[in-house]
Amino acid sequence: MNSNMPKISIVGAGLVGSLFSCFLAKRGYVVDVYERRQDMRKANISAGKSINLAMSTRGWAALEKAGLKEQMEPLAIPMYSRMIHQADGEVEVQAYGKDGEAIYSIARGYLNKIMMEVAEKEPNVNFHFNTKCLEVDFEETTIKFESYTSNEQFKVKSDLIFATDGAFSAVRYNMQKTDRFSYSQSYLKHGYKELEIPAGPNGTHRIPTNHLHIWPREGFMLIALPNLDGSFTMTLFLAFEGKYSFANLQTDKEIKAFFETHFPTAIEHMPYYLEDFYKNPTSSLVTIKSDPWFCNNVALLGDSAHGVVPFYGQGMNSGFEDCRILDEIIEKYKGDNWDKILQEYSDVRVANGQAIGDLAVRHFINMRDDTQDDNFLKRKAFEKIIMKNVPEFLPQYSMVSFSNIPYVVALKKGDDQIKMLESLLEEYPNESDWHQAVIFEKVRKFLREY
Amino acid sequence: MNSNMPKISIVGAGLVGSLFSCFLAKRGYVVDVYERRQDMRKANISAGKSINLAMSTRGWAALEKAGLKEQMEPLAIPMYSRMIHQADGEVEVQAYGKDGEAIYSIARGYLNKIMMEVAEKEPNVNFHFNTKCLEVDFEETTIKFESYTSNEQFKVKSDLIFATDGAFSAVRYNMQKTDRFSYSQSYLKHGYKELEIPAGPNGTHRIPTNHLHIWPREGFMLIALPNLDGSFTMTLFLAFEGKYSFANLQTDKEIKAFFETHFPTAIEHMPYYLEDFYKNPTSSLVTIKSDPWFCNNVALLGDSAHGVVPFYGQGMNSGFEDCRILDEIIEKYKGDNWDKILQEYSDVRVANGQAIGDLAVRHFINMRDDTQDDNFLKRKAFEKIIMKNVPEFLPQYSMVSFSNIPYVVALKKGDDQIKMLESLLEEYPNESDWHQAVIFEKVRKFLREY
Repeated sequence: MNSNMPKISIVGAGLVGSLFSCFLAKRGYVVDVYERRQDMRKANISAGKSINLAMSTRGWAALEKAGLKEQMEPLAIPMYSRMIHQADGEVEVQAYGKDGEAIYSIARGYLNKIMMEVAEKEPNVNFHFNTKCLEVDFEETTIKFESYTSNEQFKVKSDLIFATDGAFSAVRYNMQKTDRFSYSQSYLKHGYKELEIPAGPNGTHRIPTNHLHIWPREGFMLIALPNLDGSFTMTLFLAFEGKYSFANLQTDKEIKAFFETHFPTAIEHMPYYLEDFYKNPTSSLVTIKSDPWFCNNVALLGDSAHGVVPFYGQGMNSGFEDCRILDEIIEKYKGDNWDKILQEYSDVRVANGQAIGDLAVRHFINMRDDTQDDNFLKRKAFEKIIMKNVPEFLPQYSMVSFSNIPYVVALKKGDDQIKMLESLLEEYPNESDWHQAVIFEKVRKFLREY
Repeated sequence: MNSNMPKISIVGAGLVGSLFSCFLAKRGYVVDVYERRQDMRKANISAGKSINLAMSTRGWAALEKAGLKEQMEPLAIPMYSRMIHQADGEVEVQAYGKDGEAIYSIARGYLNKIMMEVAEKEPNVNFHFNTKCLEVDFEETTIKFESYTSNEQFKVKSDLIFATDGAFSAVRYNMQKTDRFSYSQSYLKHGYKELEIPAGPNGTHRIPTNHLHIWPREGFMLIALPNLDGSFTMTLFLAFEGKYSFANLQTDKEIKAFFETHFPTAIEHMPYYLEDFYKNPTSSLVTIKSDPWFCNNVALLGDSAHGVVPFYGQGMNSGFEDCRILDEIIEKYKGDNWDKILQEYSDVRVANGQAIGDLAVRHFINMRDDTQDDNFLKRKAFEKIIMKNVPEFLPQYSMVSFSNIPYVVALKKGDDQIKMLESLLEEYPNESDWHQAVIFEKVRKFLREY
């Protein structure tokens, strides 16, 4: 080990912090990871009870670069399609991508635990739990912590600090007061509540396993992701106020009437939904944007830099991509000149963080309303034919979920492609004309000239 | 005095806090005003050295409702027009409104001082200086303060708290952590630096008094506002980085070359500009937006709720309007039911705060670049004729500066009017046709149908 190697502090041992500690450990840095909560490995984690995530290409690419992919694969359940449960009881399957392309349901707890264990095996990496970040001095690169076990406050001086302490990042609250740091937090009018479909007999799934299930009901929706133990983690997304809202679901009678009216095909598998509804908190949905993602020797990664709403399943994936890209830049500069490394990281990532924030908010409307909209379904059917015949055509969803194309490109190009498809559909409104070679040639021309 | 009257704390004794304390004093409330800085009346205030402001109709309307207008009028210098100093040495006068309409240059220090004195005369109003707000508890309506004189911390419990502690409000930083509080701070790439034209012989003004002087130079500009003592307060707005930037003005040679090239007609009146340039700080320009403007019994007014960049001269005016509107709502509910009062205040004002934030950013481009743009000048000339012949036509600038029309309306209607004028100009490109009755009739029809 080179004694000139910088001493690094990571604030937050969640998914992104744990992964980034693995990246830094591989490079031989001295790394201390500070986490406000207790060690989750000593707490009781059951997969079915922890929020699960949808891992897609970006997440896998980061895990692969960190050498963790193989270990994680057995934990992930592929979801090849959306299974849409319409209000009239009809069920429809919408593939996410091409054959074999899937997003993967994975339990947050398991994933986090394994990454911490991998990082901790390195002699230079230490985790400190029950340690809350109180204050950051950006001139001195020091952090003031409070230990929840000793109740004492202490200061840590580092050469570099990486903040992976989530959407409500204490480091970022401090950075917010530095000059010319642009920042926004904006909340949706909707909140969410976790519910569950418990495992069936012998740990089997009560509804089909390899799908992300959606019960879209204009203005609100229920979704379900499969867990390894046979259960499904469900999430109800609903407005806080208004006709259909959490505010109007206060009594047994109101809650039952709501679910019986809108989600009869879900509650037949949810014996405890009423208890769960009372027991589980109603949480809010925030989008965080910041610019730049660093101040002096302190940088932000993951939700602390760009909290996103969960609808595109890209929260973890975008955070993992931050780690991979930053690691590439460290590689490029051979770990020298951190001013340049952090500047380039911020320059490359800020716009992408904003783009996935916007995409995620828009995707809510898409999941909630469009998945049952005739025009949307028509375009999707048309798009499917294009995808088969013009393999280089990637819809926006595929660019986001099944590629490592920058989010800004996915946002812009995806929107332009939709306009192109819509103008083709005006020209060729009848399904019987959709297989004409001239259409595919027009799409190829669009892509070539883009 | 009614003993059931709520006990009110105001955090911040700047312009908005001082004015609001006058409003509350008139209603007989028990008011304590806490200010981080020392009492400015004991500090040395010279008008020429403190930043001056442009008071317009909204500011005057609020002062009038508070019974302060008459006292303030002698302190204000009317500016009836922009005086544009072109790069080629040409000087052009652009009236702000109709005959007699003006914005008023006024010294921040004097204004603040008088309002504090008026408020303090009331037996129920007390000011506490050198007292810094550390923390707000929104459940208990308590504030933790630190006294800079005793170095002690203490808690104050109130029935209501009003935060008027500016763009970097400590109260708002705390509110930011409450659930579903949307917030943004965004910085321009430009900063500013104060400079000065000192008074001429016997306190006379060296350049014409009753104008807001602008030296627009695409991408940057210098402005000057008159002071009562014969001096002008000047502000240089310039990018932080880039070809023309503060970063590139580091040496005597660079600074002199810049001013001699771009502002020769200004520096002939600025004997100390080089010293001032080094001495005065370079400050950044932030826009703050928040939603809602209250949490439980704590509400935000002025910059703490909606910090705006200074280009429209509406920072103080919009903050004073917050006070006037909130006072009206208190009146409407007879001071009962504060839940409703604060909710209605927030509902009415949030969108207006956002609108003036956006208008102010846009106005920078307008002042800096458009004031020398031919299309802009042509439209302005056309608009002038419309204004004379269709008295009910108010351009956007007049709606913002010479009316109390809500900012959201000024923004939307103003934009729509510009589109209307531009389409008329396409139809009637020649100045010789601009006095046709049919044009005025079209404008009247537009306004009737709006």
